[in-house]
Amino acid sequence: MTPLFERLTVAGVGLIGGSLALAAREAGLVREVIGFGRSPENLQVARDRGIVDRVATDPAGAVAGTGAVVLAAPVGVCASLAELFRPHVGPGTILTDVGSVKGSLVSALESCWADPGTVVGAHPVAGSEAAGAAAARADLFRGRLCILTPTSRTRPEARATVRALWEGVGARVEEMDAASHDEILARVSHLPHLVAYALISAVAGARVGGRPVLDYAGSGLRDTTRVAGSRAELWRDIAIANATALRASLGEYRAALDRLEALLVAGEPAALEQMLEAAAVARRRLDGDGG
Amino acid sequence: MTPLFERLTVAGVGLIGGSLALAAREAGLVREVIGFGRSPENLQVARDRGIVDRVATDPAGAVAGTGAVVLAAPVGVCASLAELFRPHVGPGTILTDVGSVKGSLVSALESCWADPGTVVGAHPVAGSEAAGAAAARADLFRGRLCILTPTSRTRPEARATVRALWEGVGARVEEMDAASHDEILARVSHLPHLVAYALISAVAGARVGGRPVLDYAGSGLRDTTRVAGSRAELWRDIAIANATALRASLGEYRAALDRLEALLVAGEPAALEQMLEAAAVARRRLDGDGG
Repeated sequence: MTPLFERLTVAGVGLIGGSLALAAREAGLVREVIGFGRSPENLQVARDRGIVDRVATDPAGAVAGTGAVVLAAPVGVCASLAELFRPHVGPGTILTDVGSVKGSLVSALESCWADPGTVVGAHPVAGSEAAGAAAARADLFRGRLCILTPTSRTRPEARATVRALWEGVGARVEEMDAASHDEILARVSHLPHLVAYALISAVAGARVGGRPVLDYAGSGLRDTTRVAGSRAELWRDIAIANATALRASLGEYRAALDRLEALLVAGEPAALEQMLEAAAVARRRLDGDGG
Repeated sequence: MTPLFERLTVAGVGLIGGSLALAAREAGLVREVIGFGRSPENLQVARDRGIVDRVATDPAGAVAGTGAVVLAAPVGVCASLAELFRPHVGPGTILTDVGSVKGSLVSALESCWADPGTVVGAHPVAGSEAAGAAAARADLFRGRLCILTPTSRTRPEARATVRALWEGVGARVEEMDAASHDEILARVSHLPHLVAYALISAVAGARVGGRPVLDYAGSGLRDTTRVAGSRAELWRDIAIANATALRASLGEYRAALDRLEALLVAGEPAALEQMLEAAAVARRRLDGDGG
């Protein structure tokens, strides 16, 4: 089989970038992967684990002769990384990313890339609190969703190539406009993170009669705040980049919290149970399609 | 070994009551367990699984000659169950419970039991979304915390007996006053449940461009809302019984949410990252003592 790329550059060889590199190599989609990153220790792990063929710490070396650059760094640094690579890439080089926010990022990438038609925004919905090349796994994307957000400027061949990359590593690919992506992800991912960060912030330092309340935490608090163990830097960038949609969803969430509190204050057990039961039914349905 | 009780009555043979019955029998703490409950189907499961020796559907039969009555029903019905049993128990019969709220419940139980000195509030911190006798496990309490909330009226022997029961099934027992228990649990358990119920309520029906957002949920939303799959009836009772402490903790939580949103609006990436990082550090510490 002819590989999709003779050479692929992955900028940021963490959980997502590293897993994509591993999976693309295993699937024969690429002959050579070059890893680029800021942490020599992490790049060493990526080499030791066979995630990348070689590493580069200079932008020119990282992208020379490459077929595509995958930006797998925090959302906030992707545009400047693209600027860094731009003078050194050949014509037609695809620029793609794995960011959890698409609207503002894809616009920025299109503005700074020589040929905006080769920019294809992508978001594999497969994160976790685990981080770094050490956490990378070739099966991370198998059966998981990857959303592509092509624009009116995107060339069909670039779009088809990026789709083939994600399908090749086992993902289910769906295309939508970047704004819809950001509104959906605000609700199912960015808001839950904000809620979890706020919850652990609120209770972390609390003491009752001298007892630290966290000493009494059970699985309820652990589950509900699990995602707040994620890297602060990534979520700072995501929250800022998707602030508008995130604040809209936060408003919807506050309204639900207000309704619950109002039922509690009014002492309306039947209405309170009804709202909790509707929520429980929706939540259990979420487990129906496979945890 | 002499068992702690010749006969023990468990009113509500669900996850907690059923697990306690199973564990107490396995540990030889009790010669006979009588199960009392409202669902014939669930009681049948309890008999079939050997969780109880026999079942009773009338209060008199359930408590005749019993050494202790364990109320393992939703918090809101415990006091009326105690009223139901009261005319039929012998002198010195211990009354205990497993409720997630202690203050209002223990007061109510003391008021309605013939000898308030034999009432001992208990709360094994070991719940889950699983429910019913089918989910009961003998090892549910092993190594888990059980909080006892004796009052100035509690007799030392009753307190020692209930402590021996929980230690006998493997729990770590800690005693504190009921008000402290309720303030702590509001923060580490009741608030997280409310937050999770509100979150799934807010996003459950949302659509973006005709797409149901829940179709795009990943592990973030699943983890953060897992406890909202719990039985609405139980959490309605807990929220109402602990409304004061819960609303206080909700205020602290809203303040944390407000701080996060203010940093987002102000576009203060450094301060935002600092707050997220402090939260992440606290959250990771929570995993240190064993998931």
